[in-house]
Amino acid sequence: MSIAEKPSGRTAFFVSDRTGITVEMLGHSLLKQFENLQFTGVTLPYLDTLEKAAAAVIQINQRAIIDGERPLVLSTLVNPEIQTILKSANAMHIDCFNIFIAPLETELGMRSSHTVGHSHRVDDAVDYRQRIAAMGFALTHDDGIPTKNGQQADITLVGVSRSGKTPTCLYLALQYGIRAANCPLIPEDLGCMRLPVQLANLHGKLFGFTIEPERLHQIRSERKPGSEYASLQNCQYETRTAEALMRQEGIPYIDTTNKSIEELATTVLHQAKLERKIY
Amino acid sequence: MSIAEKPSGRTAFFVSDRTGITVEMLGHSLLKQFENLQFTGVTLPYLDTLEKAAAAVIQINQRAIIDGERPLVLSTLVNPEIQTILKSANAMHIDCFNIFIAPLETELGMRSSHTVGHSHRVDDAVDYRQRIAAMGFALTHDDGIPTKNGQQADITLVGVSRSGKTPTCLYLALQYGIRAANCPLIPEDLGCMRLPVQLANLHGKLFGFTIEPERLHQIRSERKPGSEYASLQNCQYETRTAEALMRQEGIPYIDTTNKSIEELATTVLHQAKLERKIY
Repeated sequence: MSIAEKPSGRTAFFVSDRTGITVEMLGHSLLKQFENLQFTGVTLPYLDTLEKAAAAVIQINQRAIIDGERPLVLSTLVNPEIQTILKSANAMHIDCFNIFIAPLETELGMRSSHTVGHSHRVDDAVDYRQRIAAMGFALTHDDGIPTKNGQQADITLVGVSRSGKTPTCLYLALQYGIRAANCPLIPEDLGCMRLPVQLANLHGKLFGFTIEPERLHQIRSERKPGSEYASLQNCQYETRTAEALMRQEGIPYIDTTNKSIEELATTVLHQAKLERKIY
Repeated sequence: MSIAEKPSGRTAFFVSDRTGITVEMLGHSLLKQFENLQFTGVTLPYLDTLEKAAAAVIQINQRAIIDGERPLVLSTLVNPEIQTILKSANAMHIDCFNIFIAPLETELGMRSSHTVGHSHRVDDAVDYRQRIAAMGFALTHDDGIPTKNGQQADITLVGVSRSGKTPTCLYLALQYGIRAANCPLIPEDLGCMRLPVQLANLHGKLFGFTIEPERLHQIRSERKPGSEYASLQNCQYETRTAEALMRQEGIPYIDTTNKSIEELATTVLHQAKLERKIY
């Protein structure tokens, strides 16, 4: 945006001494509550020195001049000195972290360490290995699983092609360290109303996905336009029959049509009572 | 844990009307500041009705009796009525959402909608497609890219085998909707100090990963124990040569050794000045 251009709204800075992912997510949830607000989000991650804080103050103050309105600054900063410098910027400040530390210190009867999260390095290394292992598992058990490996999965997702199984498996691995496999229900399975043979002994570790036929038709048409595979009639047949098969086999299932990947992953986690491996 | 057992610490409830991912992340960051605190985390997602709130109150109160101490309840609840019911539980309450709404209403001079985030359904559907497309891209461009497709990538990660490229590509896709490819630097490339031919025209869209040889040796040994591939000597040779090659080609690179997947993804995003596609 050129400086001369009339600004269309506020600038919101999301400031963190780590990745900034948490404050971005919280900030977007908060600002979504203001439907008429136009804002431009700027993330300043790894703000972990006094020098970087001073540079951020300059950047925020410049923005205030360009916008003609003071920016919003949402922050999760552990170090109170860095927070103090940041607060000197001409902005509306929302401290999403230190504000909660004092009441927690009172409640818990202990002092906080005020250190940027490096105290759990060992846990972090274990988490990293869990996630890489879970992700490797998801990648090698995507779209079908070798018979001998099914038991190693914490959960196996089943459903018709393009119902959302793959992204959910990867998200379960990355966010929760869960070993999730997935196996499609293909026309051969649906024709004889029998589960694929490799799923035979996985009862209780299967979770089903279904999807509205209209949405499936749309998704498949982007992939293979005009095909029998993508036709609305076939999508109606496949989803209806897959749902009947899952009911017959006692597999719990959910409709994925209007759910985000996070919603699908957390729903599977909680409904299947899976234990997350990492935090 | 049996009821008779001496509780080893507090219970922390993470309560949300959506997935609970944000409040879990914020809550864990906060509680990590108390190094001597032992706590058990319980997430209550999709708490979006008064009935569910009442059930949560019962669960929290039971926990208070079992623990012999009132739990911590951290919440991101949009609906003030649900929040009010929750607050009747015998707990220390940390409201991580509504607490910020009133000051924002004052600052912005507008009322918030107090609705659980379904107001952006159209955006959500676009986001979903972006993420699925980016993830599909990452999966089909993992470990090598067809020559003709390189230009479609927003970024291509290069580095020796097992330096963290694949999980970072998937995280970039899932979190930010970025189309990230990756291409290993293999011994043939290192021997002649030339980039793989399919990377020839991607200057400015390449980003390098390196890793400490000891850590690489450890990771590769878990995969192929006792192999030449995993030997410390070979890991030293490969990382040293790959770094020299990346310097020769002007490819910026980072050391991935002590970084989490989120840290790697956000570092690539910011250092390569990529524009995120989704929020």
